[in-house]
Amino acid sequence: MRGKDMVAKKTSSGARAQAAKAVKVAIQGELGSFSHQASLRFFGAGSEPVHAGSFERSFEAVARKEADYAVIPIENSLAGSIHKNFDLLARHSLEIVAETSLRIEHCLIAAPGVSFRQVKRVYSHPVALEQCTKLLGRMKGVERVPFYDTAGSVKFVSEQRPRDAAAIASVKAATVYGMNVIKHGVEDDPENYTRFLALARHGGRRRDGDKTSIVFGLRNEPGVLFKALSVFALRDIDMTKIESRPIRGTPWEYLFYLDLGIGASSPECRNALRHLRELTLYFKLLGSYSAV
Amino acid sequence: MRGKDMVAKKTSSGARAQAAKAVKVAIQGELGSFSHQASLRFFGAGSEPVHAGSFERSFEAVARKEADYAVIPIENSLAGSIHKNFDLLARHSLEIVAETSLRIEHCLIAAPGVSFRQVKRVYSHPVALEQCTKLLGRMKGVERVPFYDTAGSVKFVSEQRPRDAAAIASVKAATVYGMNVIKHGVEDDPENYTRFLALARHGGRRRDGDKTSIVFGLRNEPGVLFKALSVFALRDIDMTKIESRPIRGTPWEYLFYLDLGIGASSPECRNALRHLRELTLYFKLLGSYSAV
Repeated sequence: MRGKDMVAKKTSSGARAQAAKAVKVAIQGELGSFSHQASLRFFGAGSEPVHAGSFERSFEAVARKEADYAVIPIENSLAGSIHKNFDLLARHSLEIVAETSLRIEHCLIAAPGVSFRQVKRVYSHPVALEQCTKLLGRMKGVERVPFYDTAGSVKFVSEQRPRDAAAIASVKAATVYGMNVIKHGVEDDPENYTRFLALARHGGRRRDGDKTSIVFGLRNEPGVLFKALSVFALRDIDMTKIESRPIRGTPWEYLFYLDLGIGASSPECRNALRHLRELTLYFKLLGSYSAV
Repeated sequence: MRGKDMVAKKTSSGARAQAAKAVKVAIQGELGSFSHQASLRFFGAGSEPVHAGSFERSFEAVARKEADYAVIPIENSLAGSIHKNFDLLARHSLEIVAETSLRIEHCLIAAPGVSFRQVKRVYSHPVALEQCTKLLGRMKGVERVPFYDTAGSVKFVSEQRPRDAAAIASVKAATVYGMNVIKHGVEDDPENYTRFLALARHGGRRRDGDKTSIVFGLRNEPGVLFKALSVFALRDIDMTKIESRPIRGTPWEYLFYLDLGIGASSPECRNALRHLRELTLYFKLLGSYSAV
């Protein structure tokens, strides 16, 4: 089952009081950002984006019931994990209810009438600038200007209308702000995907997915990580991702984030997690949902 | 044995031809950057910094013999791993010869005569801005301007001399550029450390450290990561760090970086690595050096 269907189903059941009210979805970026595109895929065109301005405020908007869901990027196939969001998953108590994977296609975007040769400055998120070095290398003497958000850089260019500047963002961002795409597919590597998560408040929903995300901290003793991972290997549970993150305030101690290829309500997974908790100082089930 | 002593010893032996010539050390940042401080700790005040401008060019400077060593940050206790440098370690063939850990103390720095109340813009590296949110939150209406390097932001302020701007960087950067420290210790969390590595060309040096760093890629089959880690657990070898990074061009497949609490020349480690290579598609020994 795909993310969109799953979330749509969960939203309809148990939310009848809301009736025809649009689902509110907190996103960090502006309209036309990749987060916005992911939220449309999860919740459809009838959903209402809430521009939170940061990842932290996206989490808070859901916790404070200003939004029903948050949609956050968690990992890019080239740049790696978005660590800020791993930290926020551990700190907040939202639940992962769905995931999706979006192909990232960057475009060079400018105001109508501005040509490729006129561009002397390119605005975008640092990660996007980093992913378009071949194009930027060909544009002799061009200045790379870091911006907080890809779509935000298009919004900025659309407001300021400089004749010598362009932005790098999605084709969707160009459409939203009435800007012109000078070049499509300007990313160095087309195998560029970002995995997004949909988050909700805990609500006693059934965990019927085939994938489970957890975070845990271990006692500091030799071989303890191996013992922790053995609880899954002993039960033939596949780990699809492992990530270690420093624990704030205790330098060089780590939290581990694991994605498991099994639903949290299966007996094997429940046994494995019970076994794991014999070894952990800290444990949290982040969610169980359908793998894309 | 501390990083400085170790590197100093290695430099003196086998480099007698260089005689009194200063050791050249490639760093990404400007003079006064934290990388510069780490390089002074490794190689002493007699070493000569080579400003490479980027991490990639730091690696290249050593490969092309324009520098003897490169000093790069690899991990921050709050922000986590510096992924770019993990990728560069896998791609290039330099060897890790030493590590050190630096306490990161940020200062608010401006031109002499500029007071705290006058500051309306603060320049620094995005990670440093993120680590000083308590201070910046108290400075109402202040604009946060991302810069490529902390020390570079002080250099910029020293050249432009704006009356309404400050930079966030080390006290060392203030000294180097003749600027004034308005506030010391402006980081939110004092448990802020960065681990730096010293890199050299492969040169048949003896691997006599008590710590080993490796990178490997695994066949895509269930339980293979567990089997890979078992080669260390079976021999009571401690893993001090594990990190997974996506492989460019193959979305959602990973390279694993491991730090082991044992020297690469010990029989247990050699046996474990031979065992590991039965399971890997790709394997590289990044270095063996003294743990700090």
